[in-house]
Amino acid sequence: MASQEIDALAQALSRLPGLGPRSARRVVLHLMKKRETVLQPLLRALEMVEERLKTCSTCGNIDTSDPCGICADPRRDTRALCVVEDVSDLWALDRSRLFPGKYHVLGGRLSALDGVRPEDLNIDGLVARVAAGGIDEVVLAMNATLEGQTTAHYLAERLESYPIRLTQLAHGVPVGGELDYLDEGTLAQALRARRPVG
Amino acid sequence: MASQEIDALAQALSRLPGLGPRSARRVVLHLMKKRETVLQPLLRALEMVEERLKTCSTCGNIDTSDPCGICADPRRDTRALCVVEDVSDLWALDRSRLFPGKYHVLGGRLSALDGVRPEDLNIDGLVARVAAGGIDEVVLAMNATLEGQTTAHYLAERLESYPIRLTQLAHGVPVGGELDYLDEGTLAQALRARRPVG
Repeated sequence: MASQEIDALAQALSRLPGLGPRSARRVVLHLMKKRETVLQPLLRALEMVEERLKTCSTCGNIDTSDPCGICADPRRDTRALCVVEDVSDLWALDRSRLFPGKYHVLGGRLSALDGVRPEDLNIDGLVARVAAGGIDEVVLAMNATLEGQTTAHYLAERLESYPIRLTQLAHGVPVGGELDYLDEGTLAQALRARRPVG
Repeated sequence: MASQEIDALAQALSRLPGLGPRSARRVVLHLMKKRETVLQPLLRALEMVEERLKTCSTCGNIDTSDPCGICADPRRDTRALCVVEDVSDLWALDRSRLFPGKYHVLGGRLSALDGVRPEDLNIDGLVARVAAGGIDEVVLAMNATLEGQTTAHYLAERLESYPIRLTQLAHGVPVGGELDYLDEGTLAQALRARRPVG
């Protein structure tokens, strides 16, 4: 029943995470009913971001400026560098506001299965940043998956000759997690890394 | 951490139904990572719809043309008219593809509480369409709420002098509904409107 333009919009929306065909239609209707308060602001915000979208040439973050807001922030500690697989990991970590340093985005993880080799990731960029000096600690914040940990091991080897402290995120019971529902791997890690109370 | 432009986009997205602040951020990231395959198609689709958005001057539907696709469709039965409260009701009904006629959108329901009076709704337009002739049946497809039914009664009075068949949607047990979970009102309606088997 809907026109070609409306169908195209519903289809474009259904490609967003968390929206299926049904909710996309609901969003279309909402946009059309609230032209001035919802559709137009969204359109302007999208145009602005589309126009200014850049990949940071220093760390690989996606932002509307290059260097990105984090790399350009003078309050950030330049001596600590946190290496992540993906931009989404950077955003997730940075939302916690607990890491005061800078980031480095690899752009993926080593994977024999998917044919991702070291030269496919931004590893040379990382080594160059470390080699340039001024960095005391590199946090390897890979995902706790087999491929993430393989990548972390590879990076540790590549960086071992530099005078830096190399750390990784702690594994263990997630906050709010119930032991009963955790997998054996997590439990084993949590037990191995147990700490004195208090 | 994010730039002003990215924040603005996240905020605009969080105003869509079904998206909170958290999922809006996830969508922003997805859009930025898939600039060519997701962001740009969405932007073009939004621009197209924004540019062509119209309210049908005949029925009140929102579409990219006036008259809307339904009013302009020559295969539609012009003798049957289905009156709905809102554009979303029109879309919901038309998705079922069971009603072959045309529609009329009131733009709301009568409500003493919200101060919605007959002159605030597109009722004169409805009466004019019926008065113009050529319509055999008017289906009052108001919501099964107190205000929806009040509106239906008012419309029935306004239309009673015209030589049309006035009908309304059946009330009863929804398909897949379990009696145990239904409210008394629905059960009473279903019992009162019971039909012979077979």
